[in-house]
Amino acid sequence: MVTFTVFKGSKDGKIVQSTTTRDMKDDEVLIKVTHSGLCSTDEHFRKVDMVLGHEGAGIVEDMGPAVKGFKKGDSVGWGYIHNTCNNCKQCLNGRETLCPERELFGDNDHDQGSFATHAIWKYDYIFKIDERIPRQFAAPLMCGGATVFNALRSFGTKSTDRVGIVGVGGLGHLAIQFAAKMGCDVVVFSGTDSKKEEALKLGASEFVATKGVKELKISKPVDHLFVTTSFKPDWNLYLSLVAPGGTIYPLTIAYGDLTVPYLPIIRAELSIQGALVAARQVHREMLEFAAQHKIYPIIEEFPMTVEGITESMKRLEEGKMRYRGVIVAP
Amino acid sequence: MVTFTVFKGSKDGKIVQSTTTRDMKDDEVLIKVTHSGLCSTDEHFRKVDMVLGHEGAGIVEDMGPAVKGFKKGDSVGWGYIHNTCNNCKQCLNGRETLCPERELFGDNDHDQGSFATHAIWKYDYIFKIDERIPRQFAAPLMCGGATVFNALRSFGTKSTDRVGIVGVGGLGHLAIQFAAKMGCDVVVFSGTDSKKEEALKLGASEFVATKGVKELKISKPVDHLFVTTSFKPDWNLYLSLVAPGGTIYPLTIAYGDLTVPYLPIIRAELSIQGALVAARQVHREMLEFAAQHKIYPIIEEFPMTVEGITESMKRLEEGKMRYRGVIVAP
Repeated sequence: MVTFTVFKGSKDGKIVQSTTTRDMKDDEVLIKVTHSGLCSTDEHFRKVDMVLGHEGAGIVEDMGPAVKGFKKGDSVGWGYIHNTCNNCKQCLNGRETLCPERELFGDNDHDQGSFATHAIWKYDYIFKIDERIPRQFAAPLMCGGATVFNALRSFGTKSTDRVGIVGVGGLGHLAIQFAAKMGCDVVVFSGTDSKKEEALKLGASEFVATKGVKELKISKPVDHLFVTTSFKPDWNLYLSLVAPGGTIYPLTIAYGDLTVPYLPIIRAELSIQGALVAARQVHREMLEFAAQHKIYPIIEEFPMTVEGITESMKRLEEGKMRYRGVIVAP
Repeated sequence: MVTFTVFKGSKDGKIVQSTTTRDMKDDEVLIKVTHSGLCSTDEHFRKVDMVLGHEGAGIVEDMGPAVKGFKKGDSVGWGYIHNTCNNCKQCLNGRETLCPERELFGDNDHDQGSFATHAIWKYDYIFKIDERIPRQFAAPLMCGGATVFNALRSFGTKSTDRVGIVGVGGLGHLAIQFAAKMGCDVVVFSGTDSKKEEALKLGASEFVATKGVKELKISKPVDHLFVTTSFKPDWNLYLSLVAPGGTIYPLTIAYGDLTVPYLPIIRAELSIQGALVAARQVHREMLEFAAQHKIYPIIEEFPMTVEGITESMKRLEEGKMRYRGVIVAP
């Protein structure tokens, strides 16, 4: 039995410090958390009595006898997916994030998360962090990075394609880097010019400020449009920027309906592709690619205390975070 | 100069007989129309002063000196696409139906169509009809058949996949046949049981009557859902039937918005794929596949007169056509 400190959401939205006691199974690893990214999905569960945080990074402190491939002291991380059945069609096809029995952050394991001193996970759902990636940078890759990389890597984007990224935030600023390093020509859409210089430095070749604009103009249509904003964009503005046969990826978890004009979708054979986080092999490729190309998030650090977490969530909610909050263990 | 009889739409929706005079260019073929399918897209243009009909079948009667590969007497057909630039990215990638300069039924060539005694088209946008396919059956393949075949053939449906077809009409009854002959396991959704026997005979393995039903139940989810109805379905009913990672194809030209629940699209990585008619190579494969597997539409014939066309459009509008109307030249 292991007991450790955790930080939870609560009915009134206050962050609450608590403890979890867990049995460690034979195939599980005890991770001492050093860093956790803050994702807007944490905000969705803020009013739920559950441990928050799903962009974990830390050090292997202990492990069960059936664990393979890890040793004490290893730098590791984990993300949105905790477990899958390993025996369904999706699992066998390497798309285990779609397993009907998948255990996801928010749905399962409410007693632990990455806002904590420790966590215990099955060894085959954690990831080795390459020594080239400092853990404060690795943490936001575990969900935000994995999400944009998966969208770019798994649905047909080619190096020769032109790619649009809507929003320069936690996801967007990583998407720009991944897409640029994959060889794509990257156009960035953001509210104002305030992030223009940074976006170009991260790899964009074109930048469009969208606030108050009635028509968006770019030099050439994009083959793929990745929407990373937490709000839904005005599709009428964006659809005409997508090349015939192009694809639109809404990447953030949102509620309500997706409403797009019907006829342009048919007449240009556009597709709208839902995309979740990366399956494990894609996640591994993401970490390798990030290490190879030095793709690091730009982060703001907060202490792992009730106050630190509360402050970080406030900053995210206000849209002030540049670009990913990282909660740092003492 | 060639002069021939055509049948047009008009402001008040009445079908009007008229004549067209056209010059025949060096690379064009004069086709004596013997049959034309009736598509619901014709209905959309009924109140426009233009010649209707875009599922043409007939016999080569004459041709310019630059025409290659055709001879007088050949059985040929044509569809929704009249011409493309042959020099853009989409054209060079074999997706010329998406060419920005494409000439489509409804947009271009208002002076001729397949409700006519003759038509003149560029030789490289017409298709040889295999002698195994009688022309009355070939005509509906030129748009309806090409549309469903393209959707089944060009976006990743595999023989081992399970496929849902919503609607048993002009498109649906061909989609069932193509999908079944491709090896797919086919589930059909239709308003009532009245088309059940026929759907099973055409190759479906499961049939679901949807009228008044609050929840749709099928034995196993489908990997691809092809929506062939002229109305938009209740997406809330259908989304849960689509397997994780599956694709939904709205196939009919419709106006207004496409509105689907947002979260299920993301969480199951579903995709919504717009699909138009087939590019030319896909169209050729469709005709070859239809000939090889004896995939014929089930048709009702009408004479190519003002009265015949009016009657056929009335029957289509009332939803009574089983399953594709064919206008037959005298």
